[in-house]
Amino acid sequence: MSHNSFGHLFRVTTFGESHGPAIGCVVDGCPPLIPLTEADIQGDLDRRRPGQSRFTTQRQEPDQVRIVSGVFARESDGVQVTTGTSIGLMIDNVDQRSKDYSDIKDKYRPGHADFTYDVKYGIRDYRGGGRSSARETAMRVAAGAIARKVVPGMVVRGALVQIGPHKIDRANWDWEEVGRNPFFCPDAKAAAFFADYLDGVRKSGSSIGAVLEIVAEGVPAGLGAPIYSKLDAEIAAALMSINAVKGVEIGEGFGAAELSGEENADEMRAGNDGRPLFLSNHAGGILGGISTGQPIVARFAVKPTSSILATRATVTRTGGEAEMFTKGRHDPCVGIRAVPVGEAMVACVLADQYLRHRGQVGVVAPRWPFQE
Amino acid sequence: MSHNSFGHLFRVTTFGESHGPAIGCVVDGCPPLIPLTEADIQGDLDRRRPGQSRFTTQRQEPDQVRIVSGVFARESDGVQVTTGTSIGLMIDNVDQRSKDYSDIKDKYRPGHADFTYDVKYGIRDYRGGGRSSARETAMRVAAGAIARKVVPGMVVRGALVQIGPHKIDRANWDWEEVGRNPFFCPDAKAAAFFADYLDGVRKSGSSIGAVLEIVAEGVPAGLGAPIYSKLDAEIAAALMSINAVKGVEIGEGFGAAELSGEENADEMRAGNDGRPLFLSNHAGGILGGISTGQPIVARFAVKPTSSILATRATVTRTGGEAEMFTKGRHDPCVGIRAVPVGEAMVACVLADQYLRHRGQVGVVAPRWPFQE
Amino acid sequence: MSHNSFGHLFRVTTFGESHGPAIGCVVDGCPPLIPLTEADIQGDLDRRRPGQSRFTTQRQEPDQVRIVSGVFARESDGVQVTTGTSIGLMIDNVDQRSKDYSDIKDKYRPGHADFTYDVKYGIRDYRGGGRSSARETAMRVAAGAIARKVVPGMVVRGALVQIGPHKIDRANWDWEEVGRNPFFCPDAKAAAFFADYLDGVRKSGSSIGAVLEIVAEGVPAGLGAPIYSKLDAEIAAALMSINAVKGVEIGEGFGAAELSGEENADEMRAGNDGRPLFLSNHAGGILGGISTGQPIVARFAVKPTSSILATRATVTRTGGEAEMFTKGRHDPCVGIRAVPVGEAMVACVLADQYLRHRGQVGVVAPRWPFQE
Amino acid sequence: MSHNSFGHLFRVTTFGESHGPAIGCVVDGCPPLIPLTEADIQGDLDRRRPGQSRFTTQRQEPDQVRIVSGVFARESDGVQVTTGTSIGLMIDNVDQRSKDYSDIKDKYRPGHADFTYDVKYGIRDYRGGGRSSARETAMRVAAGAIARKVVPGMVVRGALVQIGPHKIDRANWDWEEVGRNPFFCPDAKAAAFFADYLDGVRKSGSSIGAVLEIVAEGVPAGLGAPIYSKLDAEIAAALMSINAVKGVEIGEGFGAAELSGEENADEMRAGNDGRPLFLSNHAGGILGGISTGQPIVARFAVKPTSSILATRATVTRTGGEAEMFTKGRHDPCVGIRAVPVGEAMVACVLADQYLRHRGQVGVVAPRWPFQE
Repeated sequence: MSHNSFGHLFRVTTFGESHGPAIGCVVDGCPPLIPLTEADIQGDLDRRRPGQSRFTTQRQEPDQVRIVSGVFARESDGVQVTTGTSIGLMIDNVDQRSKDYSDIKDKYRPGHADFTYDVKYGIRDYRGGGRSSARETAMRVAAGAIARKVVPGMVVRGALVQIGPHKIDRANWDWEEVGRNPFFCPDAKAAAFFADYLDGVRKSGSSIGAVLEIVAEGVPAGLGAPIYSKLDAEIAAALMSINAVKGVEIGEGFGAAELSGEENADEMRAGNDGRPLFLSNHAGGILGGISTGQPIVARFAVKPTSSILATRATVTRTGGEAEMFTKGRHDPCVGIRAVPVGEAMVACVLADQYLRHRGQVGVVAPRWPFQE
Repeated sequence: MSHNSFGHLFRVTTFGESHGPAIGCVVDGCPPLIPLTEADIQGDLDRRRPGQSRFTTQRQEPDQVRIVSGVFARESDGVQVTTGTSIGLMIDNVDQRSKDYSDIKDKYRPGHADFTYDVKYGIRDYRGGGRSSARETAMRVAAGAIARKVVPGMVVRGALVQIGPHKIDRANWDWEEVGRNPFFCPDAKAAAFFADYLDGVRKSGSSIGAVLEIVAEGVPAGLGAPIYSKLDAEIAAALMSINAVKGVEIGEGFGAAELSGEENADEMRAGNDGRPLFLSNHAGGILGGISTGQPIVARFAVKPTSSILATRATVTRTGGEAEMFTKGRHDPCVGIRAVPVGEAMVACVLADQYLRHRGQVGVVAPRWPFQE
Repeated sequence: MSHNSFGHLFRVTTFGESHGPAIGCVVDGCPPLIPLTEADIQGDLDRRRPGQSRFTTQRQEPDQVRIVSGVFARESDGVQVTTGTSIGLMIDNVDQRSKDYSDIKDKYRPGHADFTYDVKYGIRDYRGGGRSSARETAMRVAAGAIARKVVPGMVVRGALVQIGPHKIDRANWDWEEVGRNPFFCPDAKAAAFFADYLDGVRKSGSSIGAVLEIVAEGVPAGLGAPIYSKLDAEIAAALMSINAVKGVEIGEGFGAAELSGEENADEMRAGNDGRPLFLSNHAGGILGGISTGQPIVARFAVKPTSSILATRATVTRTGGEAEMFTKGRHDPCVGIRAVPVGEAMVACVLADQYLRHRGQVGVVAPRWPFQE
Repeated sequence: MSHNSFGHLFRVTTFGESHGPAIGCVVDGCPPLIPLTEADIQGDLDRRRPGQSRFTTQRQEPDQVRIVSGVFARESDGVQVTTGTSIGLMIDNVDQRSKDYSDIKDKYRPGHADFTYDVKYGIRDYRGGGRSSARETAMRVAAGAIARKVVPGMVVRGALVQIGPHKIDRANWDWEEVGRNPFFCPDAKAAAFFADYLDGVRKSGSSIGAVLEIVAEGVPAGLGAPIYSKLDAEIAAALMSINAVKGVEIGEGFGAAELSGEENADEMRAGNDGRPLFLSNHAGGILGGISTGQPIVARFAVKPTSSILATRATVTRTGGEAEMFTKGRHDPCVGIRAVPVGEAMVACVLADQYLRHRGQVGVVAPRWPFQE
């Protein structure tokens, strides 16, 4: 990952600011002959889109994606497919209300990237966060929609598992439920609680953090690489690169620190389908940086929105001290909308690792059991 | 990071297996004219070296590093300095006891990378873990010793903050104490407890996980990059790439999920030294992926050693089922020796980001406060 | 360089097909605070633009560039400058005449990439060459216009030095003349000859090759890197990546094969300005892959346009044999318009090497003479 | 390619100076299960090794390669094969005569990299050229020997085709002859002439340039990538990165500038083996940056050795003027020994492109003719 690109063979580069004319993305290295239309991407974008419930910002961004390049109608059946060349994606910014930025222009919002951009570059586009805005994540979701199609049989899903100190009851986990509530919450009972809880947070002008979980199923064994391209290392970077994320864990995660070797290491039996049957999945589907064939399980923590109604102490661009509070349309819990973003990032990492594995090793087929 | 390399301008590539003739590393892109001798590297290697207490494996690896290239005596004073060309480092493997590998040759040790290497590559060097052995981390430590010299004024230190469910008392934190006990533990009282506790783990043939913390001080504001080269994303990848690591967090980490915006966002006052004074450091020194000038704080969780004396269910290379337990010399808590490795990885990331920042932006000087 | 990107710290990624809705480009890693407007880019685009004389294709592409991201008005004076974030550039395709592609859809044009795209990807966008069209080079020119601003004092210029077997007389070289004729030819007399000569080629429906020369002045000594990032190696890749280029040479080039060591190695005297005075420049400004401070001189050969009116033998997509000739609006000598493209590529390489040098070494100042 | 590495999936990193203890190389990303012993590499090294005739330097470097990592005995038959992990290669430097370097320590040899290393890094290892010595190319040859095994059926061969102004007669081309004379010359008659000619050059203490040709046969169609990873662009960079190379051309090369479209574009007929039959190969096996299935043909020009017995004007490290001439054991025509180096570089590029193609596209099988 470097600056505005990530991935090696499946490589994503984004551009655009929150309040510029458009945001865009280039997906380079996508295999050819994969059916792809704007509708394939739009579904995921709609899941990330704000303004769909009172629990996310009321900005209206229709986020209509356009595929600018890299697709063509297949000769045999006229279906639009990828051509193997770079895929350009664009979304016009339509809800950039002209407003008075004099306040954030000169003052650094605590918890935001205002100070760090200025100190790094000597300038920042302060309108709506500019390049540091979570608006950029729309392009990640778009790229992720393509990545999902690269690995045959792979399904990547995400869910919210904690808001503030309140964790869901994993016994209630129902993937169907995730689409039924505005929190991507797989526990219907917890979702009902979160509605009340977040109403309180929202009305008080405050905000709260969250924990999300991404599960990738149907990932073939053997993806990843031993040392610095470890699958878990790349997932960690991908999730930590999402705005406001402060922690990432795989499988048992920080909980593994409290376990003994007997409790933690997943035992194996022979299985019936030519794959080993793991008796547990503390590893989260990854051993030695390489996928085991079990579901990949990753969690990440999102900090509370820093833009709140409370007055906060800060400094100005020219060195003075000031107080400020943030007006405007913001998410009381930015973590919620990060669910499709986390899915997209994990999908992109897996697509890239899949292509790299296929490149180096040539086969993506189970070798086990060995015949000799 | 790709396969066996990480970093962009300061780039580290390693090679070598646990039981081959040697392990080695190439540090590419190091700035010229930095004084460097083998003694500068050996100190960090000695801190990582096993066999120094009863709490780490009793293997004897003197880990004597040789600098093979990339240094030369400076004309003016004869001091050996880096030349800007690639630095080759070698450590001979000396304690490769010939032993009977027939057990692990055909059976996959639960929790280890045995199965995944075989399924990915169709072959693995099973002697001592081969390439997946933590032995490779000696070269990370060596590279890290060079990285520490790249960023002027930077000090990177690490400490063990939890073993099993037992956390240290942060009120007792004393960096001096870290060098006085075999656990890299900054809390003398906790260290005494850990000695007893780990004796119990060791004698029972079991193992236990741990949590470590790395703190980098003296890091200039402005390192990192907005989107996919975020400083925290690269630290996450670097730490997650260490053997047995299952979770990474920055600053408040997973705890941030439980905080409100008021509690989490660090307020600022003007400061006396031309830098803003942050009133807290929940951010762990990073906002928007870019360093704030505060200490960088990262923690990572290490799972318990998977090699334990208990009998475990597994499968064989050819598809059968088997039971196995691991004899031999192993760490009851592999997390302990990961402290200098974690320091090295963070130092490498910061050295690389420092050079990239200097490349793109040209200055590594505080711009704040602005004059206009 | 990988697929659709080139450069490391100054990194350019392009997308778009000849007959899609638009072509675009992302310039990542550009330093901040560089004044940049669309007018700065448009000048170079206009030099590359076809349809300006009877010697280039009569397609009308106004090539109006839009800067979509990465610039902002500077606080102090309101001047629009780069922000250090990714710069998105777009050009709408406006002259995509709808026409009958049935001929080239099924037949592979000799000398074109039709067969190789199909055999590689299993599909190709056959309209106007799709991704293999020289239309993509408009984005290179746009990126190059930005690159020119990255290295202070650098001037990169190009000229046509040969068409078919006819070389210019270097004694007549006048940079001013380059802008006065439609051939970018620095020799007024040769330009007059080329006008007649190319009229003949054009009227006969044939085409002819050319050789171009790029000269970069004001390049500081020390850019490049010893082994695989040699400045000449990167220039060679950059120029060879331009459509239809078949050869690249630096300084004396292939002529160096005929020289003796005495004739070829450039002698040095002390010079008056703190720089060595080279008594000749057979090296083309590069020794050991690193710039000497002398002008960088590179030449490249462009093959004749493969689209000609003559009937040619070829094969069809389904394995049959066929004859074809290419109707339509084509350049009799595609080499001519490659002059601004070559300039842009060399400028991009130098900008990238400048930033990488500044990153690794920290100073871009003459060290010679040494004081000790 | 960056600093001391080249390649993407098949990636080579070298280290070591001419007069240090050893030179080494890491080959990362090599596919697993490829039989590999030191003998496989030694043959190519022996072809490059100096001191084998009076026409190359009389230094004695046995160049015994050791494989330090990345290979293991295959379970089924005990054959040593690659494991997919990084392959470490080492060659000890044995003929580093201690000698008086006071002359070249302070004076910059014209035509060498002495001045540019000093001006870039502020220091250089002046013993025998240090990192800029052609000694580094031994590691390229070693890596190339592995690369040759990556692409099934590929044969990469090289030959010397010109010394000074004297070109071979291509009608006499006989690959068998290349191994029979000390010039890698495929024309026996020319070889006899070169022996006399070079004796004259050698005795006069002078040197002369050369042109070499590399031909890769058995390369599947479809390798390369459309824009910046063009196969010809990467070959150009690879060959230009060899010490003393000043020009690279593909197929017709600079000669293409003199051709008409009719003469240059290769016509196609159907062929009998499911591949198109090209009626000529002016393209050198590459169209649009992608291999056609025809032989890849590249040529490169090597300048004359700069170390000659004549007295030359130069400058000193501290700014003075001086005269110098180079004593010692040098090649009268360094181009000769570049033949195996050029082969190795082309093999590495093709291995890397092969793996990347297999990664992105998944199949390396002829798609033509299409069925539909």
